[in-house]
Amino acid sequence: MNHSQLSNNIIKKSSFLCVGLDTDPRRLPAGMEANEKNVLHFNRVIIEATHKYAAAYKINIAFYEAMGPQGWEVLQETLKFIPDGIFTIADAKRGDIGNTAEQYARAFFEVLNFDAITLNAYMGRDAVAPFLAYSDKWAIVLALTSNPGASDFQYRTDAKGIPLYLSIAHAAADWGSPGQIMLVAGANRTTELNELRAALPQHFFLIPGIGAQGGSLAEVYASASTATGPCMLVNASRSILYASSGPDYAIRAGQEALRLQEEMSNLINQAN
Amino acid sequence: MNHSQLSNNIIKKSSFLCVGLDTDPRRLPAGMEANEKNVLHFNRVIIEATHKYAAAYKINIAFYEAMGPQGWEVLQETLKFIPDGIFTIADAKRGDIGNTAEQYARAFFEVLNFDAITLNAYMGRDAVAPFLAYSDKWAIVLALTSNPGASDFQYRTDAKGIPLYLSIAHAAADWGSPGQIMLVAGANRTTELNELRAALPQHFFLIPGIGAQGGSLAEVYASASTATGPCMLVNASRSILYASSGPDYAIRAGQEALRLQEEMSNLINQAN
Repeated sequence: MNHSQLSNNIIKKSSFLCVGLDTDPRRLPAGMEANEKNVLHFNRVIIEATHKYAAAYKINIAFYEAMGPQGWEVLQETLKFIPDGIFTIADAKRGDIGNTAEQYARAFFEVLNFDAITLNAYMGRDAVAPFLAYSDKWAIVLALTSNPGASDFQYRTDAKGIPLYLSIAHAAADWGSPGQIMLVAGANRTTELNELRAALPQHFFLIPGIGAQGGSLAEVYASASTATGPCMLVNASRSILYASSGPDYAIRAGQEALRLQEEMSNLINQAN
Repeated sequence: MNHSQLSNNIIKKSSFLCVGLDTDPRRLPAGMEANEKNVLHFNRVIIEATHKYAAAYKINIAFYEAMGPQGWEVLQETLKFIPDGIFTIADAKRGDIGNTAEQYARAFFEVLNFDAITLNAYMGRDAVAPFLAYSDKWAIVLALTSNPGASDFQYRTDAKGIPLYLSIAHAAADWGSPGQIMLVAGANRTTELNELRAALPQHFFLIPGIGAQGGSLAEVYASASTATGPCMLVNASRSILYASSGPDYAIRAGQEALRLQEEMSNLINQAN
């Protein structure tokens, strides 16, 4: 999917919501046994309940790897439930030397056919380049994350006072076009979102940290949107997946996705 | 496996060789079709040919993920061929927020039962902490890698002139004991290996970049060994796996592993 297709889908749906499928077998609704079959069923129901409001799905690979070989089958089957035209992200945070990055690119872009993958750029350009060899596929590079540990190294300034996350953002923008490079920046970092947007006016941002992690959608929109549209995907995982642990989990997940989509629609409309 | 068990195994075998199983189906010996069954067979033969000379095996997860769900089965079966008492490393370079890191720890320490995993610490302490909850399991944190892209961010100095790789090394040493934290540093970085050893006198280093990537074993040993022993694992992957593409591949792999082990043995003996 290219930049204008993604932008058009967002406008058409009035939604820049990314639904995160971080499905933990131990957090399935009450009465549902923790096994692979039920994870797949749960994912199907969640996708059915939310896809009208979602511009993207982000699948957190860790939760599937923790199931062993069957986890990868659940991953493949889950992808089949996502309707065509909805952007798919492998939240994998991979990053390795060139010959290894090529293998990860094969795994996520060829075997699984995701539109995008999250990447850690600590190992530099050759950890990202092999993913850019696939046209209309995206490398989503970690800039500033939403977790407490972000303060350990990401804000570390160089001699000129430039923080590491900003150096990585600039470098990533040099490595690939706004049609292939996206950046991760946390919803709880609105000051830095402003700064990143000023530096990269055309790049999509993938923004986690809404919902369970507590960021405000209106503040995020004010900081990160562009003159031509949202140019972002805002992720919510746990607040949707676990909106209810009862038999109404699908309805409640759909309601939470709708609530976020309506808030996004209002923000888009107010901006126009 | 704890620090003294690993150190004792290294002394007993006179080897700090780590054999990297980065098995690429497209680089199997001539006449062997590129499929999962043959990768497993190849791994078994390589392990049989090299285990007498190896202190550790490092499995590069990317090559298995590129095979899809069956890749994870090959991974599980490959681990069964590694004799007890040999240290096993998942070269996965994972790194994510706490709840996700817990899932990766389950995948690699519980489901697959590796002794250690390589981690990317860009996201900070909470990306590493869940792995340290497992006693006698190891978090191997990327400090300075051997690839060209290492120069993009890893040498970036702060206002005091301290490079990022050294800040990460110091932080990792604060997060866990030398019995759980190991550091990755490239064999082609001998000056920096000296500096890292001075900073962390007791920690094991995992050192890739010998062989196909061109680092010198004698220089590495001079830079990174300690008064009490090697305190390192030096990895070779392609130079062993692909020592021959003919029917003598097992013999040649064994010879290359033996050659490295003998060189290691000489270095250990000279130091005593």
